[in-house]
Amino acid sequence: MTIEQRIEVALSEAVARTSCPGAPPTLSRAISYAVFPGGARIRPRLCLAVAEACGGTSRKVSVGAGAAIELMHCASLVHDDLPCFDDAAMRRGKPSVHRAFGEPIAVLAGDAMIVLAFETLCEAVADTPRVAPALMRILSDSVSAARGIIGGQAWESEPVVDVAAYQRAKTGSLFVAAVRAGAVAADNDPTAWRALGEKLGEAYQVADDLHDAFSKPEDVGKPVGQDGLHGRPNVIAEHGVTGGVGYLKQLIRAAVDSVPHCAGQADLRTMIEAETRRFIPRQLAARAA
Amino acid sequence: MTIEQRIEVALSEAVARTSCPGAPPTLSRAISYAVFPGGARIRPRLCLAVAEACGGTSRKVSVGAGAAIELMHCASLVHDDLPCFDDAAMRRGKPSVHRAFGEPIAVLAGDAMIVLAFETLCEAVADTPRVAPALMRILSDSVSAARGIIGGQAWESEPVVDVAAYQRAKTGSLFVAAVRAGAVAADNDPTAWRALGEKLGEAYQVADDLHDAFSKPEDVGKPVGQDGLHGRPNVIAEHGVTGGVGYLKQLIRAAVDSVPHCAGQADLRTMIEAETRRFIPRQLAARAA
Repeated sequence: MTIEQRIEVALSEAVARTSCPGAPPTLSRAISYAVFPGGARIRPRLCLAVAEACGGTSRKVSVGAGAAIELMHCASLVHDDLPCFDDAAMRRGKPSVHRAFGEPIAVLAGDAMIVLAFETLCEAVADTPRVAPALMRILSDSVSAARGIIGGQAWESEPVVDVAAYQRAKTGSLFVAAVRAGAVAADNDPTAWRALGEKLGEAYQVADDLHDAFSKPEDVGKPVGQDGLHGRPNVIAEHGVTGGVGYLKQLIRAAVDSVPHCAGQADLRTMIEAETRRFIPRQLAARAA
Repeated sequence: MTIEQRIEVALSEAVARTSCPGAPPTLSRAISYAVFPGGARIRPRLCLAVAEACGGTSRKVSVGAGAAIELMHCASLVHDDLPCFDDAAMRRGKPSVHRAFGEPIAVLAGDAMIVLAFETLCEAVADTPRVAPALMRILSDSVSAARGIIGGQAWESEPVVDVAAYQRAKTGSLFVAAVRAGAVAADNDPTAWRALGEKLGEAYQVADDLHDAFSKPEDVGKPVGQDGLHGRPNVIAEHGVTGGVGYLKQLIRAAVDSVPHCAGQADLRTMIEAETRRFIPRQLAARAA
């Protein structure tokens, strides 16, 4: 099985837990709709790649941790699309969950996916309890009210925004979780890995801002032009287009350079270079050359 | 410290985790508003009472598990009150979270409290990892899409409702979690305790239906007459008023009788009798005599 297939299988197994006899069927269908087909699955792939680079031998933990992080990501998309936030009609090229299933089911699907993420991680660490506390903490930190994606989204309701804290929390925290979880899954100290997660998270956010301004909805599977519409801080407002592209290239370079010393350092750098190449919108590729 | 004080301290410590430097301040205030002042805190008190009855010696685990269950309960109230569900203006005698802080913060507060519940439990079991997997599973089962409170709420979106599954999931599951967690916290097998949780959950639901029909908003701190308004299945529609009160008394008896053999069986029965006496609305006390 390829790494991609392993991740899809883990996500399928997690989602299947929501549809046992006696469970309300629509909620389970909505969760499945929110998880499949996925986007690039970059967070779980990163988690696995770091675990391999650290010499991890069993994939059960890293796949489970990666799937848990991906479920948190999917949950955040469902809730961020709600009418009281972005009121997005489309996501991943199809109607958003609340458009397809109604708002009550969309709220509950997001809630249930947060729970499912914790369940999935617990299941993955059942045979290796020594890594359980650290991984549980990584997962909960990454979504927490204080510094995780939930806190990041909440910054949008503040009259005065701490932009650095906002972006670090909203986009960076799941990337940080992915690389740290990969290290812990391979019995490594995750401390040295944080910088890679932060750089990748920041690069991804800048790329997302550029796509929001320059891509077509059909290319990204969701509405564009949202940053301007909602008055959100974004890289183009701050640095202009050319400056934004240059900044993205710098961040990608910094991410590649920040891969800590480990057995699979060279392979991991190659993987990150290939992944981040896709970050730059096609329309801007010439400027980035 | 009394048991009640220990629970409030544990909840305060949990909520404090959401307000560290760099965290968005409004979200943290909303979470605190949703948790304090509380209702009867019946679920955590039950969890502690079962742990004591089973001869549990350390209270760290039972208090933490009880606080985690209470946080899940508070999260469910915040989300159930949202405009797309009950659109409730009042809760515990003050404006509901979305009325006080706006809908975005209410959605995020509920999300964050689910995460906080898992964090709180992880913290509580840090020194006793042998009970961690069972308690994590009890907590996640109690709120899951399949048979927990999230699934229970989702039944309200189904065209055809499995009423037994709906009520068991929506109200019963946190009571079942409270008694099972109490047993596990005291290193006991939780199997024999499920029946007590189920009976208490059912009794609480019947009591809630009676309050919805007969209490005044100022007595219960939230709107009444909601079951009829939302066409929800309820005990009065099913059994009439006198029948409903009789059924509640039966359930309370069954709950008391279902306390398994344990060192503190007599004390626990006395506690449950005292607690459940409050279930019956004052207006109906004469019929219940």
